[in-house]
Amino acid sequence: MKLPEILNRKTVARSRLFKIETLDLLFSNGVERTYERLPAGSRQGVIVVAVNDKDELLLTREYAAGFHEYQLSLPKGAIDDSESAMAAGARELAEEVGFGANNVEFVKTLTVAPGHMGYEISVVFATDLYPNELEGDEPEPIELIKWPISELDTLIESDDFREGRAIAALALCKSRIERIQSRSPG
Amino acid sequence: MKLPEILNRKTVARSRLFKIETLDLLFSNGVERTYERLPAGSRQGVIVVAVNDKDELLLTREYAAGFHEYQLSLPKGAIDDSESAMAAGARELAEEVGFGANNVEFVKTLTVAPGHMGYEISVVFATDLYPNELEGDEPEPIELIKWPISELDTLIESDDFREGRAIAALALCKSRIERIQSRSPG
Repeated sequence: MKLPEILNRKTVARSRLFKIETLDLLFSNGVERTYERLPAGSRQGVIVVAVNDKDELLLTREYAAGFHEYQLSLPKGAIDDSESAMAAGARELAEEVGFGANNVEFVKTLTVAPGHMGYEISVVFATDLYPNELEGDEPEPIELIKWPISELDTLIESDDFREGRAIAALALCKSRIERIQSRSPG
Repeated sequence: MKLPEILNRKTVARSRLFKIETLDLLFSNGVERTYERLPAGSRQGVIVVAVNDKDELLLTREYAAGFHEYQLSLPKGAIDDSESAMAAGARELAEEVGFGANNVEFVKTLTVAPGHMGYEISVVFATDLYPNELEGDEPEPIELIKWPISELDTLIESDDFREGRAIAALALCKSRIERIQSRSPG
């Protein structure tokens, strides 16, 4: 497919965190449309699938402003300038749930709502964990929930766990998690 | 956890599609913070996992304004007023790729970026398909790609398929898809 031509691009609203712009587009079939989008900010995100040596997945229950409620998710946050996704993942793990990781693997970079947002979030997989608390920018301590990896399917289907990118992250790490399970004595 | 108290809530920016608001929050430990969010709009979304009678998954390659590129995804769109997620999914399937479905099941409602957005998208599973083209609001025809369900893991891992909520939708439909596969003669 031939990309539409951008006839005009304009910032129409802006806040401290967000910028909204319009794109006046001419599609290759001659149709003109104006689209709105939140373009990529300077910082992208990272989400961490971390499994400890008891074969437990580390989950968070954190305040979600979009819904004004506490929601179950995975450790996650913004990637700082000059930081790799893996380094950011390890830092967020320490800040949010108090663990370092000797093994951090990059898994995949995901889009969130590509029709309207340029935002990306990278999935990393962390194992060989050790206690390591770092102070982050959280307004309050984040609740840590340990979930047995043998119950992964129950988690994914649970009504309490409904963040799309977290479910995607677990799906993408499934074979890695199964490899851990198959190594376990019990 | 006790929810933070909303001390003040204000719309700080607005465009045709989006609204940005600030929440001045008092957390239960006494910490005050101002959060920004895009609250839930009036319309939520639907994303469709559709499998035809040749055991193929129906994928789209559609213009994604967030990245100004064509990206592989699943049929999806907004749920209209007074429409169920299942009805909206069937309508989007007809508008985007030209198929109706005699069987549409609700699977789960996902959040997209709950820390900053009140947006939700429901996953529906569609089978028993028949040709049914409806005219939608797309500026140009959407490319349809048929992907064998036997190659689902390859798709999920592909660098070309990276929309988090689409990967989550496939993960959530995995057992349903496997049931179709196990029924197939070949």
